[in-house]
Amino acid sequence: MNRNVVFTFFLFCFVTICRGSGTDIALDAKATLLHRIDSLNLLIYTCLLTLTVLTIWVFKHRRVSWLHETGLAVIYGLIVGAIIRYAGSTNHITHINVNPEPGTTYNLSVPPDMLRFHFPASLPITPGDSPIANKTYAYSFRGEIVNVEQNEIDLKATFDPEIFFNIILPPIIFHAGYCLKRKYFFRNLGAILTFAMVGTALSALVIGALMYGCVQLMPASLASSFTFLDTLYFGALISPTDPLTVLAIFSQLKVDVNLYAMIFGESVLNDAVALVLSGAIQNYETRYSHDGGFEISGFLGAIGDFIGIFSLSLLVGALMGCLTALMTKFTHVRDWPLLESALFVLMSYAAFLIAEVCELTGVVAVLFCGICQAHYTYNNLSSDSRNRTKQLFELLNFLAENFIFTYIGVSMFTFPKHHFDPWFIIAGFITSMLGRAVNIYPLSFLLNLGRKPPIPVNFQHMLFFSGLRGAMSFALAIRNTVSEARQAMLTTTSLIVIATVVLQGGAATHALDYLRIPTGEGSNEESEALPYRDVRSLYHATDTGESRSRMIVRWSNGAKEVIMPWQLNGYDDTPRGGGDAGGGQKARLARVWGALDSRLLKPLLTHARPPLTETLPAFMRPVARLLTTTHQYTQGDNTLRRTDSDSDLCIDDPQIPSSIDPQQLWPGLVDTRISVEGITGSNI
Amino acid sequence: MNRNVVFTFFLFCFVTICRGSGTDIALDAKATLLHRIDSLNLLIYTCLLTLTVLTIWVFKHRRVSWLHETGLAVIYGLIVGAIIRYAGSTNHITHINVNPEPGTTYNLSVPPDMLRFHFPASLPITPGDSPIANKTYAYSFRGEIVNVEQNEIDLKATFDPEIFFNIILPPIIFHAGYCLKRKYFFRNLGAILTFAMVGTALSALVIGALMYGCVQLMPASLASSFTFLDTLYFGALISPTDPLTVLAIFSQLKVDVNLYAMIFGESVLNDAVALVLSGAIQNYETRYSHDGGFEISGFLGAIGDFIGIFSLSLLVGALMGCLTALMTKFTHVRDWPLLESALFVLMSYAAFLIAEVCELTGVVAVLFCGICQAHYTYNNLSSDSRNRTKQLFELLNFLAENFIFTYIGVSMFTFPKHHFDPWFIIAGFITSMLGRAVNIYPLSFLLNLGRKPPIPVNFQHMLFFSGLRGAMSFALAIRNTVSEARQAMLTTTSLIVIATVVLQGGAATHALDYLRIPTGEGSNEESEALPYRDVRSLYHATDTGESRSRMIVRWSNGAKEVIMPWQLNGYDDTPRGGGDAGGGQKARLARVWGALDSRLLKPLLTHARPPLTETLPAFMRPVARLLTTTHQYTQGDNTLRRTDSDSDLCIDDPQIPSSIDPQQLWPGLVDTRISVEGITGSNI
Repeated sequence: MNRNVVFTFFLFCFVTICRGSGTDIALDAKATLLHRIDSLNLLIYTCLLTLTVLTIWVFKHRRVSWLHETGLAVIYGLIVGAIIRYAGSTNHITHINVNPEPGTTYNLSVPPDMLRFHFPASLPITPGDSPIANKTYAYSFRGEIVNVEQNEIDLKATFDPEIFFNIILPPIIFHAGYCLKRKYFFRNLGAILTFAMVGTALSALVIGALMYGCVQLMPASLASSFTFLDTLYFGALISPTDPLTVLAIFSQLKVDVNLYAMIFGESVLNDAVALVLSGAIQNYETRYSHDGGFEISGFLGAIGDFIGIFSLSLLVGALMGCLTALMTKFTHVRDWPLLESALFVLMSYAAFLIAEVCELTGVVAVLFCGICQAHYTYNNLSSDSRNRTKQLFELLNFLAENFIFTYIGVSMFTFPKHHFDPWFIIAGFITSMLGRAVNIYPLSFLLNLGRKPPIPVNFQHMLFFSGLRGAMSFALAIRNTVSEARQAMLTTTSLIVIATVVLQGGAATHALDYLRIPTGEGSNEESEALPYRDVRSLYHATDTGESRSRMIVRWSNGAKEVIMPWQLNGYDDTPRGGGDAGGGQKARLARVWGALDSRLLKPLLTHARPPLTETLPAFMRPVARLLTTTHQYTQGDNTLRRTDSDSDLCIDDPQIPSSIDPQQLWPGLVDTRISVEGITGSNI
Repeated sequence: MNRNVVFTFFLFCFVTICRGSGTDIALDAKATLLHRIDSLNLLIYTCLLTLTVLTIWVFKHRRVSWLHETGLAVIYGLIVGAIIRYAGSTNHITHINVNPEPGTTYNLSVPPDMLRFHFPASLPITPGDSPIANKTYAYSFRGEIVNVEQNEIDLKATFDPEIFFNIILPPIIFHAGYCLKRKYFFRNLGAILTFAMVGTALSALVIGALMYGCVQLMPASLASSFTFLDTLYFGALISPTDPLTVLAIFSQLKVDVNLYAMIFGESVLNDAVALVLSGAIQNYETRYSHDGGFEISGFLGAIGDFIGIFSLSLLVGALMGCLTALMTKFTHVRDWPLLESALFVLMSYAAFLIAEVCELTGVVAVLFCGICQAHYTYNNLSSDSRNRTKQLFELLNFLAENFIFTYIGVSMFTFPKHHFDPWFIIAGFITSMLGRAVNIYPLSFLLNLGRKPPIPVNFQHMLFFSGLRGAMSFALAIRNTVSEARQAMLTTTSLIVIATVVLQGGAATHALDYLRIPTGEGSNEESEALPYRDVRSLYHATDTGESRSRMIVRWSNGAKEVIMPWQLNGYDDTPRGGGDAGGGQKARLARVWGALDSRLLKPLLTHARPPLTETLPAFMRPVARLLTTTHQYTQGDNTLRRTDSDSDLCIDDPQIPSSIDPQQLWPGLVDTRISVEGITGSNI
């Protein structure tokens, strides 16, 4: 049962409590019942999550690695869903058909928002047990009834699908952006963008075309219900990956950071791409294609929609992030960490809302807002706020993520609009694998033509293997279940998500072994005690191959002190052109971006050196002086600027295992070698 | 416009997007519009909160003390509300009256949950611009229409009142419980319970009776619309206090901790009492009083409801708190702080849900859950989780609190169901003041008869002055606006809240001066930089007058170290009977509770000494051994148990101003004197 409706219903019924009559008391009792059912549904999920948390603890305690928490959440969800389905009773929704009162005039093309109904006077048969006062009740518009025979809306543990897009996904996506390891992300920007943008579109197209072919081979009843746009929509929704489980294992086993960055970065961006892409396909169906056929203007319009909505959403998010950075830079709100954290949360949420108000995609805005907040604002925050925001979103992300996977499990049994079609399911599994392959292998080949350290074949296999499907696919599939075709898509998507999360997730460790991808699993036992999903940075590679990429770890006064290379003479401080020794290994895109970022954006938005007065042309000096804080002037070049580091986010533990040779992990990346001058013990 | 409905509507409309027809596109556009309006409403509040945060910062920066953030939020809300009201356009809701289809049979006493409506075939007049496909639409039950003339539901920046009880109030109330200064709370338990339980009921009764008298003197139209139960309900909803502003000033000016504890403790508990009381009055109206007259059985039933619901809700909350404590004690989930924090949040939320499922009051359960979590679970948590949960709820509380005050301001102009009646408003102001006076002065007199350090007269005046009304009153008032009487109550309540928060809040500093209540405002400038609403403990009084109540502050290795008396030989560790020297000054209730708590509950639920094996009778030894952790055995008596202290919550700064004589602050409390052996500087 849709809980928003229940709450609304509850409210409006509550209003009637104080006027005593038989009907009112019955209505009141009904409203209370609905509210209780509603609370019970939430309680079921709360208990499931509690159970998941406790089991995860047991698993971590006993070092079980073949089942990740999301897999666990799905399995618990399936069990409880089956129990609810076969044990619970069904609440029937009463309904009657109505006609307008005689003499009603109405001349709009949309149905009215509200119906008014006199009860019980207007019914020919009234109950005989007690006289009921005649009253007028309001009924609000819910939507079209497609299957008029379907008499029942189920009250069993299901929620309005829109909550995923408005409540569950935003914190997950924001956290992903906020936690992106920016240095490695920007280093692999070319590959990530290729996989995420081109790859996802390609995968959607291939899956859509293959599925359309498969559907045509199937029994006629199913074939006729699918248009090419339907299968293309399926392609778009099944393309985004969500390799949570794999990434958790990566960070546990300390797999190469570049591989991690590519998989994580791709999965973050392809969620955004798939969301906008599926929106554009919907739009195409609605706006351009009245007869379902192909029209070139409509096609171009849909592509325009896609590009426009994506880039405008990106802009809204990035601007809000930069605005927050400016606010935290030029005010002293950091003296009151609570206010600062509140400002941070409010501005990030505003990015989501502004995008929604402008008919853009809030989730995409929130992603890029998160990236900007991490890249700029984070450097201006007080340490209290850094911790607070990091921990807050980590917790929200954890709860939201496990909720959605629990829900996938439960809804498999309780959601009333599933349609099991074995052929469609089999075809879905096969084509989604093929789509992933088309995404990875040809694009890797093309990337390797221009990429200096090429992506090794075993890394390509791992990228392919990391094609787990997750929250975004499910949310897109459950959003629209009006036709049989859409219901078959939901069922297939749910099954693909469950299978990939449980099976592929469970096999990730073996896949790493099998593909001979080196892991950095050392002797340090406490690695599991580190926060969820953080990746340990094996070696802090800087962006060029100069000798300053040496990290110094030394012991002073009993406390381990790590001096990162960029703290000695950082990446941000010495902007160069593209002509230096190691520059050839950086993508042009990353190089241009790096220069812009370090010369203009960072000095503008954070307290980083060099001040704008040094980097801007002479005629801009007065403006530059205005935008530079005294902190930026007085800060010497030799200061260890711990507050401004590209890596201080998501790297909670500065320990560096000395036993691993980076060469072994990422052949060809000669410039990432680091000398660890002294390391003993560990600090948690 | 009710936003849940908008989301639901949006969803159901979205479902219809992919089938192209004129009606569907129009519906789609309408749904998008509603979603945008909805996002815009949220955005307005987000911007208002952002503005509030920035202004608070400016005020703190410039040391403005005559306006607190809640007052500021209300004022901004009023301004923006006025702008929305007079500048915005109104969205009309279309409606038609309907009759059942001929031949419908229906024999329940409640109206059907859903109506089905054929559009446009069933309407005699259809629009001529384009042929519209005939479809069946679903309409869901909303509630009774009382005023059939009222043609419009306003889309302007208002929310479903139930969100206050299900989303906004729970974190505020939980935070209050979690932040309760337990030592001082239990010390003043007698006074707090008297003021909160007896006082609130008394105040509700007095206000109800006086208002009923006033209403009878008013013009007949109003007089006839109020029953005694209505005015009693008004008494119950206007009785709870919310002295946020006063408490913030108290903690800023370092006012006596016992006074702080009394005001804070009372305000926390009287929210719970008022909520249950108003529920009982509603129940009385619905269930017992069919003719509106007084029935002794109904009255007793309502009292039974009140006591039953209150104590069962308390029990649910306390049990969930204790269960969390047991979970965190006997598992090693503390090794993974994220899991631990998630468990903490989930269990606390489960307390709310369980109470709601059992038809109890979730908010009350969450309050006592918070108190138990702070008293027991907090001691078992890892330091990471302590910080995280504290900061999380601090932030949620800050946002929720400021949202509700902003909303009070905005809704003053935009909520469509206000009814301004000058006489009722004046009467409301006067009686609510009288009600507060009846709460404080007679009860203080009675308390002082049995209380050893009596409550001084100026403290009584301050208690009276702290009778600001706030979130709970408003939430209760806006929950029910079905009749003119209820609408007049909402308007009066809103005005009382606004006036008390802005005026009384602004005058709090002067009131302290005027009443000659000593403040500890010393030379330390950084006191404002401390977290929101935390109170600095001036002198850490222990529970007896023994010499061990000495706090030692010393400097070691450049870091200030404060050894609290309970760390040397604590309150929890040496349970005594009631017969010791200082015992006479403790309330019997507190004494019995203290013994039970320190001998049984703390050793059971936390790692505190003495172990149960020492305190339980011999025949329970095997059980006791099972429930005692090795940590409890091995822990020596001389260990400084920083993890187990009654005061480590909400006291972030251990600095003690040496210039204040406790005698001066709380005459008669001779046993709270503390020697500060050395204090210099300050650390933030």
